[in-house]
Amino acid sequence: MARTTPTVRAVAAEAGVSIATVSRVLNDARHVAPGTREAVRAALDRLAPTGRDGVPAGRVFLRCPYTLTDYFGLLVSSAAETLEAEGFEVVLEAGESAQHRDSLATLATRPRVTGALLLLPPETPEALVAVRRAGLPLVVLDPRTPPPADVAAVSAAHLSGARQCTRHLLGLGHRRIALLRGPAGWVASSERAAGHAAALLETGMLPDPALVRQVEATTADGQRAGGELLDLPEPPTAVVAFNDKVALGVLRAAEARGLHVPEQVSVTGFDDIDLARATAPQLTTVRQPLAEMGRIAVGLLSRLMRGSRVEALHVELATTLLPRGSTGPSPL
Amino acid sequence: MARTTPTVRAVAAEAGVSIATVSRVLNDARHVAPGTREAVRAALDRLAPTGRDGVPAGRVFLRCPYTLTDYFGLLVSSAAETLEAEGFEVVLEAGESAQHRDSLATLATRPRVTGALLLLPPETPEALVAVRRAGLPLVVLDPRTPPPADVAAVSAAHLSGARQCTRHLLGLGHRRIALLRGPAGWVASSERAAGHAAALLETGMLPDPALVRQVEATTADGQRAGGELLDLPEPPTAVVAFNDKVALGVLRAAEARGLHVPEQVSVTGFDDIDLARATAPQLTTVRQPLAEMGRIAVGLLSRLMRGSRVEALHVELATTLLPRGSTGPSPL
Repeated sequence: MARTTPTVRAVAAEAGVSIATVSRVLNDARHVAPGTREAVRAALDRLAPTGRDGVPAGRVFLRCPYTLTDYFGLLVSSAAETLEAEGFEVVLEAGESAQHRDSLATLATRPRVTGALLLLPPETPEALVAVRRAGLPLVVLDPRTPPPADVAAVSAAHLSGARQCTRHLLGLGHRRIALLRGPAGWVASSERAAGHAAALLETGMLPDPALVRQVEATTADGQRAGGELLDLPEPPTAVVAFNDKVALGVLRAAEARGLHVPEQVSVTGFDDIDLARATAPQLTTVRQPLAEMGRIAVGLLSRLMRGSRVEALHVELATTLLPRGSTGPSPL
Repeated sequence: MARTTPTVRAVAAEAGVSIATVSRVLNDARHVAPGTREAVRAALDRLAPTGRDGVPAGRVFLRCPYTLTDYFGLLVSSAAETLEAEGFEVVLEAGESAQHRDSLATLATRPRVTGALLLLPPETPEALVAVRRAGLPLVVLDPRTPPPADVAAVSAAHLSGARQCTRHLLGLGHRRIALLRGPAGWVASSERAAGHAAALLETGMLPDPALVRQVEATTADGQRAGGELLDLPEPPTAVVAFNDKVALGVLRAAEARGLHVPEQVSVTGFDDIDLARATAPQLTTVRQPLAEMGRIAVGLLSRLMRGSRVEALHVELATTLLPRGSTGPSPL
């Protein structure tokens, strides 16, 4: 439990007033201007975690501007559970509509919020830096764009996970391996594409631009783009999909063409969400350690909130390849 | 936006003090005992929604003691989005570990929380009534047990949804219809079983006890119990599963026995979570209006928090049958 009583010195520094002023406010003296009193109380709230039972150690703004299913739901659950176990109160902002709300601009002045954990923030790196500069401890979980140097971030090791996945296909004899890469500008898209290319290079191959498509991270777009690839005069024997939802679309495209998976074409996903085990055959995929990512992010934030120096501001957690029925030996 | 400034009279009533005392506290007079001052400030926080920009209209404790995926994630997302749109701040408690925390006992005294929305609470009806009696506006979303008369609740119409589903199978000529009913004591289990029985009765049939099994709401248990049914000397031609996860288990059990779905056996789910569209064939299922349930629950809570009288304390929302590939004509 991170329940410490702040020193008068710390409160004075936080409120930007003298130690004597803080003492006067704490003793409820009258000769303090209302504005000053407010500032001291806000600083107390920010630092304080008043020690009484049931009173939280601090309040953390947890933002996930997406619907809480699968990937996002697991991250938020893990972060929320860890925050609660540490005695923090969780203030949630969630759902797609949160993307249209400028929450970060006012975050540092939000009453009694003492730290923030942002999942896949759609904001620019500059907006994140601004929050950090305003003095609010901040951790980004699964940054969408490369995280700024002074903003703490936790993500899965996209590159090494994707490399492992393409190596698995190469080991099965595949040489015509297509890639459905994710949305432009996402660090997950570029890192996974880089991992794919790295594995090909190890075997002396280069990615074939004719076998690369960019997709939205949806089943519908996976089905569309997967269909395009399977309709090529020389179709791929394996398709590496950006994530499990996209891979499901590829399975559907194969089914619609009467192609058997994995006998005629292998398909891989990324994430290992529930549906990866609902398909027939089940999806070979790369598991992200979502629960662990949530816990590590809370640990980092908790240290930042206590004013500790945090050495490794950018943390990457290893992924696990899960070979299942959707991949098999190359038919060529 | 539910931002109203409470009257001095309302604050006095809430704090259990005189109007003069409230006035003294608001004017920051010294001659008020600290305990009284605290009580008035707590009442203000509770009612108040201080009108300043960026200050929430109230704080709602949103509790979902389960991992936020699929069903739960969609409900929490909808509730959180609606609460935010109405100007409330959302205090979240989520994840399985929350089941081991006695949050309700201290809920009414939790600082600055002005209302509560509880998803599928594992607590007894008595514990819910106690929260209500302590004066905290409360709405239960998807009650696990029959909700007490004076506690507001929102749920899907389990009975009519299940009846529609079994009617669909009867319409396809099925007469040996098995039921995998959900966990004991859940209102969803008994209501869906009642809907199943009601549909059979309409055709002059009674549920056959030999074709009913009770399962945990998991794929593994669906596979186990589904396998038992399919191994009977006279197996069912259709299996009604408690939900989509259980139905996935039945599909696996059928696959393991070389049985084709729906040619040899039909399978139905409930919920329409993502995996219902990931299976091959896709699942015939009953969709719960999760987004609408979240919105209605917030609407009820918002009215209770404003002190309005709420007529229909128990709200049931209609479900939709979605016929897909996992059901077909009876082979008999």
